Amino acid sequence: MSQAPTVRIAIDAMGGDRAPSIVVSGAQMAAERLKNAHFILCGDEKQLKPLLAKKPLLQSKATLVHAKDSIAASDKPSHALRHGKHSSMRYAIDAVKSNKADAVVSAGNTGALMAIARLVLRMLPTIERPAIVTSLPTIRGELVMLDLGANVQCDSQNLIQFAYMGDVYARCLWRTQNPSVGLLNVGSEDTKGHNELHNAATFLKHPKSGINFHGFIEGDDISKGTVDVVVCDGFSGNIALKTMEGTVITVKTFLERTLRSSLLSQFAALLLKPALSRVKALIDPRLYNGAMLVGLNGIVVKSHGGTDGVGFANALCVAHELVTHDYNRRVSDALSDHQKEIDVAARLDQAPPS
Amino acid sequence: MSQAPTVRIAIDAMGGDRAPSIVVSGAQMAAERLKNAHFILCGDEKQLKPLLAKKPLLQSKATLVHAKDSIAASDKPSHALRHGKHSSMRYAIDAVKSNKADAVVSAGNTGALMAIARLVLRMLPTIERPAIVTSLPTIRGELVMLDLGANVQCDSQNLIQFAYMGDVYARCLWRTQNPSVGLLNVGSEDTKGHNELHNAATFLKHPKSGINFHGFIEGDDISKGTVDVVVCDGFSGNIALKTMEGTVITVKTFLERTLRSSLLSQFAALLLKPALSRVKALIDPRLYNGAMLVGLNGIVVKSHGGTDGVGFANALCVAHELVTHDYNRRVSDALSDHQKEIDVAARLDQAPPS
Repeated sequence: MSQAPTVRIAIDAMGGDRAPSIVVSGAQMAAERLKNAHFILCGDEKQLKPLLAKKPLLQSKATLVHAKDSIAASDKPSHALRHGKHSSMRYAIDAVKSNKADAVVSAGNTGALMAIARLVLRMLPTIERPAIVTSLPTIRGELVMLDLGANVQCDSQNLIQFAYMGDVYARCLWRTQNPSVGLLNVGSEDTKGHNELHNAATFLKHPKSGINFHGFIEGDDISKGTVDVVVCDGFSGNIALKTMEGTVITVKTFLERTLRSSLLSQFAALLLKPALSRVKALIDPRLYNGAMLVGLNGIVVKSHGGTDGVGFANALCVAHELVTHDYNRRVSDALSDHQKEIDVAARLDQAPPS
Repeated sequence: MSQAPTVRIAIDAMGGDRAPSIVVSGAQMAAERLKNAHFILCGDEKQLKPLLAKKPLLQSKATLVHAKDSIAASDKPSHALRHGKHSSMRYAIDAVKSNKADAVVSAGNTGALMAIARLVLRMLPTIERPAIVTSLPTIRGELVMLDLGANVQCDSQNLIQFAYMGDVYARCLWRTQNPSVGLLNVGSEDTKGHNELHNAATFLKHPKSGINFHGFIEGDDISKGTVDVVVCDGFSGNIALKTMEGTVITVKTFLERTLRSSLLSQFAALLLKPALSRVKALIDPRLYNGAMLVGLNGIVVKSHGGTDGVGFANALCVAHELVTHDYNRRVSDALSDHQKEIDVAARLDQAPPS
């Protein structure tokens, strides 16, 4: 059996709330899991060298690239573009551009990452802006959802492109053969929602689209796992995602209050501890950490800024999977196969409703 | 002390999945709670009379109005408008129009209720379409949220009007003095989201608006209870609401599976039963049942179609509170006090971004 080719991942070692320490410990965990990975750690040598010295396995699989600057969480994208030329984030993205890396992972400033990646890597043909895609837990397992906030207003062309990008994402991550795709709406009937959704649905349900289109879905279908891929505009996608996060925290808070409310409850909670930690693991946000900025001409994965080593390692594994399964080539192929029909569908957005 | 004036509530006795039985049992519970209420039960005499005969208290506080038809859950609003002239829903709405009732409550078809109420009662001045408002549980108590799905696309005028309607709703329901109002967005920074949101925010944060404006909030702020009133377009509001519902069900399902997973867990679950039912009660959807269709020239409350007597009684209590605290007059006053400035704000939606 031939060896798998090396997957080279550039890392913005200075991005995130607790960088570079959690970045290095995440990379160490990923190095243990991913036999064929090589890491290009971009950041402050003085901070990184002593951290790396304690992780011989990672050291044997990593190259250090010194970057004297880093981009702050509060920096505006325009500022990061102009003044971040020698930042760890910029160097990591540059490594993909110059083909020294196959993907880049950063836990830093999302707006800056998007702006620099757009400038340096450019977009895939026919795509105007990156979208944010990630996987999420459901009752039935996981699903893929996009856009999660990059595109506040979307026309039917955007939504159709998201459908292809999500479809390929599910195929790459889970080796699913024919993922089902749903369009997020305020009802499942054909007449619900706005024109852009109707035109996207008309396109997607046509057998020639090659998409296994389920139809419209509603907010409660997300965590029910009704479909494998949820497609939505970035405004409602972001609100749905944050609402889910907030609701989980609220239910957990109610539960914890209850478990502390009496001695009897405290005793029962003790008995339940192992079982409850299994529930916690199912919805552990670290396991779903690693959102891809899709539509860029390069694999760019955003880790949550507040994650720990486990979460960062997961983001590295997502990047590794996307490279291994040739995500961007497959998306480009799917889009170019259908671009003519997508253009026709998008033109209908402007037509008066029939 | 003078007696509180009678509040007359017209009820669509045939609307909802288990009508008329749950409607009558809900009215009985409300009759016990609301000393000064009188109910006008519209529906099929043959079914209602025997049900009423078993509830002497309700019978003493109710008038029966026979309606030979009823509107089905599957009827299109246009069909209900044309063919529902002798339906229980229509008669109940007509009772408000002819000033025989102060409010109407229905657990029937939402689209039909909205269409018939618009036709019969008309809108308040300057309002184009009803919005849907309800209260929801949060970590800190409850909040009011609107629009929950009636207005798929909203301009800044709609959003500002929702702010006033939500503000008065919170004042009526909880006697809050100065409820805080937040605009749902994809980030809390001023630059986030679209033009309509920015224009609405500019208006609301001006001291002259009279609104205690918190600023932009995100999806997770809903269940955190960051504000008392959440204002949003009907598309994202509906998605947030349904996503919350779905997430609660998912977490509950995970938990139940865990509690059944071993004998030890089953034993612990038994000990926790009273505590867990307190958590359940906190998020019991029946307690938040009763969404008002605001903007209509009359108090119209929609009960969830699948609710039981407890939930229907709650919807009746919501209607009773809104009448008692003179909801529609207070909304009209607030809107007419600010309509000129609202018009100015709305005109900015069309201006190119500065």
